[in-house]
Amino acid sequence: MRLLILSLLFTSTLAWFYGRDEPDRWSVGGVWPLPQKIIYGSKNRTLTYDKIGIDLGDKKDCDILLSMADSYMNKWLFPFPVEMKTGGTEDFIITVTVKEECPGGPPVHGASEEYLLRVSLSEAVINAQTVWGALRAMETLSQLVFYDQKSQEYQIRTAEIFDKPRFPVRGIMIDSSRHFLSVNVIKRQLEIMSMNKLNVLHWHLVDSESFPYTSVKFPELHGVGAYTARHVYSREDIADIIAFARLRGIRVIPEFDLPGHTSSWRGRKGFLTECFDEKGEETFLPNLVDPMNEANFDFISEFLEEVTETFPDQFLHLGGDEVSDYIVECWVRNKKIRKFMEEKGFGNDTVLLENYFFEKLYAIVEKLKLKRKPIFWQEVFDNNIPDPNSVIHIWKGNTHEEIYEQVKNITSQNFPVIVSACWYLNYIKYGADWRDEIKGTAPSNSRPRASAAAERLWSPAEKTQRAEDAWPRMHELRCRLVSRGYRIQPNNNPDYCPFEFDEPPATKSEL
Amino acid sequence: MRLLILSLLFTSTLAWFYGRDEPDRWSVGGVWPLPQKIIYGSKNRTLTYDKIGIDLGDKKDCDILLSMADSYMNKWLFPFPVEMKTGGTEDFIITVTVKEECPGGPPVHGASEEYLLRVSLSEAVINAQTVWGALRAMETLSQLVFYDQKSQEYQIRTAEIFDKPRFPVRGIMIDSSRHFLSVNVIKRQLEIMSMNKLNVLHWHLVDSESFPYTSVKFPELHGVGAYTARHVYSREDIADIIAFARLRGIRVIPEFDLPGHTSSWRGRKGFLTECFDEKGEETFLPNLVDPMNEANFDFISEFLEEVTETFPDQFLHLGGDEVSDYIVECWVRNKKIRKFMEEKGFGNDTVLLENYFFEKLYAIVEKLKLKRKPIFWQEVFDNNIPDPNSVIHIWKGNTHEEIYEQVKNITSQNFPVIVSACWYLNYIKYGADWRDEIKGTAPSNSRPRASAAAERLWSPAEKTQRAEDAWPRMHELRCRLVSRGYRIQPNNNPDYCPFEFDEPPATKSEL
Repeated sequence: MRLLILSLLFTSTLAWFYGRDEPDRWSVGGVWPLPQKIIYGSKNRTLTYDKIGIDLGDKKDCDILLSMADSYMNKWLFPFPVEMKTGGTEDFIITVTVKEECPGGPPVHGASEEYLLRVSLSEAVINAQTVWGALRAMETLSQLVFYDQKSQEYQIRTAEIFDKPRFPVRGIMIDSSRHFLSVNVIKRQLEIMSMNKLNVLHWHLVDSESFPYTSVKFPELHGVGAYTARHVYSREDIADIIAFARLRGIRVIPEFDLPGHTSSWRGRKGFLTECFDEKGEETFLPNLVDPMNEANFDFISEFLEEVTETFPDQFLHLGGDEVSDYIVECWVRNKKIRKFMEEKGFGNDTVLLENYFFEKLYAIVEKLKLKRKPIFWQEVFDNNIPDPNSVIHIWKGNTHEEIYEQVKNITSQNFPVIVSACWYLNYIKYGADWRDEIKGTAPSNSRPRASAAAERLWSPAEKTQRAEDAWPRMHELRCRLVSRGYRIQPNNNPDYCPFEFDEPPATKSEL
Repeated sequence: MRLLILSLLFTSTLAWFYGRDEPDRWSVGGVWPLPQKIIYGSKNRTLTYDKIGIDLGDKKDCDILLSMADSYMNKWLFPFPVEMKTGGTEDFIITVTVKEECPGGPPVHGASEEYLLRVSLSEAVINAQTVWGALRAMETLSQLVFYDQKSQEYQIRTAEIFDKPRFPVRGIMIDSSRHFLSVNVIKRQLEIMSMNKLNVLHWHLVDSESFPYTSVKFPELHGVGAYTARHVYSREDIADIIAFARLRGIRVIPEFDLPGHTSSWRGRKGFLTECFDEKGEETFLPNLVDPMNEANFDFISEFLEEVTETFPDQFLHLGGDEVSDYIVECWVRNKKIRKFMEEKGFGNDTVLLENYFFEKLYAIVEKLKLKRKPIFWQEVFDNNIPDPNSVIHIWKGNTHEEIYEQVKNITSQNFPVIVSACWYLNYIKYGADWRDEIKGTAPSNSRPRASAAAERLWSPAEKTQRAEDAWPRMHELRCRLVSRGYRIQPNNNPDYCPFEFDEPPATKSEL
């Protein structure tokens, strides 16, 4: 017996060294993010394409469930480039039971994503309160499916699973102003988000550099502010993205950042203040809203009415970050602004002028026909007075301790928070960088990745402490996503997937 | 006049700030890498698909030129996703004149890549010594073509160009051992290399982790050493890659690293020594060749005979790096090796045993039926005695000064060098990292990228000193490559391409 144990230990070391697979180092039918509770059965069952079916019960007309059934049956359940066997087994029906009605809109904040999933040798049963829970359950079920190299068959692990997310907002922010992302590229993000059970697309639509949002009421905004007439999201594009996200259980929260980061709004005459350099020369780089011009608030009001008609989500991100970066140039050195401040009794205190702007903005939001909960970046809490109804979005902090301190401080004043400070996905580096965050020192120097973040946001904290424990499942996740057609970089040092990424040399772009 | 200049300055600042285009900040018909001499004409000419033709003169049967004509006519000359206009202009014939015969094999070391290219309003004329020069000229010509947004027409800039590379070896190393790369993925690299006028694929085929090379004589090597039976390059795959590279003017230099980094050769019984940990227990992690076993040299000889029949390039990379990393484990702690060293009179000096191995390896290379020039990593120069016929490959050095010092030292002893130390393309980071290398402090902390390296290796040093000057052309290059179907990340801070990358959501992998 002792010999056997030794031999296993050696195998394990070898496996690690050579980057090879081995049962406890590479999951088979592992689920990412880790469910709240999962008990695997001891047996697996073979799946063949013509014997598998999905029964949607009394929800056979629900477009969300129909789209789900189609995607999983035709793409995600059997993603590997192998011949699919047919026949040879009993039927395997996935019965989906959802309590609540099929919603006409996207998920609302806090909607249940809870589900029960039982996979036996004869069937699979999904029970969920909402269609969103059913979507999460189906993704989990698809991750219990694996391709067995020996028998050359698809198999599914038997399991009993209870699951629900740790946090209600699990999002990714995309910035379509600094670099325009095509509708298809955004859809690819949404698809892969749903495979990681992420449920919020925070769409930072507009920034200083460009204005790709197409307003019907104010076409001069994108007319002047977009990079080119081709670099815009048409009304149809936006509706298409929201609908595509909804079918995958994802909310789209738009951001229109005010009063800074606004250069690209310059199509609207009089919206921005004149800005000046140290010598008093005009810089022609306006980046702050002109708070003196009362017409600007009427415009913002009309503009946001249109935005709320465009984006159904009950949250509306209104930015508020880095105003101070432009205050000297655009407010302090601007004589008209200084005069206005004196008239209002603000003296030299630009914070009072900021507050003046924000109070008028809160009043606009308050009066919107379609009610919205505003989100602001943390500066509005740090420097100003947030509307009591606001959500505060934390993006600063160099250590976990600093970030926790901020969370404590802001939530103790009864503001809900969204924390982005520790998840800068654009900070990339050489190697298996997703592991680094776990060490937990300086977040701004650490490099998590979206799947790693997705697990921290969904799964129980106590079960997801060590990168070492996570990697066998993450490796399997990566390989599954690669086979699903997504270019996911290796997440470990030397290793391989059963089926590696493949793509023919480029041909001429399609019209 | 002063007002006009000021206004231009302001426009320039604005353009920079907003990431927008502007004539002197974003090239139109710019060439990357920069030619030795280029004089643009003042006029451009419209190109329409049915009026353009390529005349290969007396080389109409040359497969390399036929493949070139097909690729450029059908893909690379007109890559943008726009309707192609026809008619409306006079014929525009590209006449290609090549002096030397069409070669049956890939480029040989030092083969001329020089060309003359003249583009007038009525025609284009390419003159080259070799087909390789013609390939480079055609890529240059394709980069003079641009899509004019105003007229919605393809146009070509008129120009007179004399060009040739600064260095004869301009390569990229791929490692298909630590992560297996599919044949298609390698072909995509080759395609994009040719668009950057790179001419060497250094194929690091085999390493400790896996052995994807399929030997006919010794199938046990990949049989045991490949990750799986799917993770191999068949004989046909290798021939396919070499042929694909040849058509694009690229040599393929294979590397078989000896005597270290050899774990994956373990399919060959007796090839590796036993290795031991501090306690004298066998580690089962052999990574060094057994130099005592005379049969191993017969095997290496037979194996390399096959390699030279497989890879036509006259260079053969035989590694030699990081032997010292395993010497204690696999030689010093190995009693049989110690005994052998005593017998040979090496005492405790493992360097003498290394030399013994290398001398026998040189003798094998010397006797190869197909003559090959060996390349060794720098340790063979630093620690041992390289064969006088060797090329030394520099990969160490923390500063430019250190690297230059090594180049001086090694070349002063009459060894040609390949320098990789300052071009670690796998060191990536956030942002426009290709610029950093220009600052020229610590190469291992800097982050160049392949296109940046390609220009440094091709273009005159004195004309390519500043990243600031390079970026307008690099930006145009990136946008062209994106339109050609390659996912090139933005190389600047906020910016845009006329046509952004687009790709539909993934569908099921093809069989």
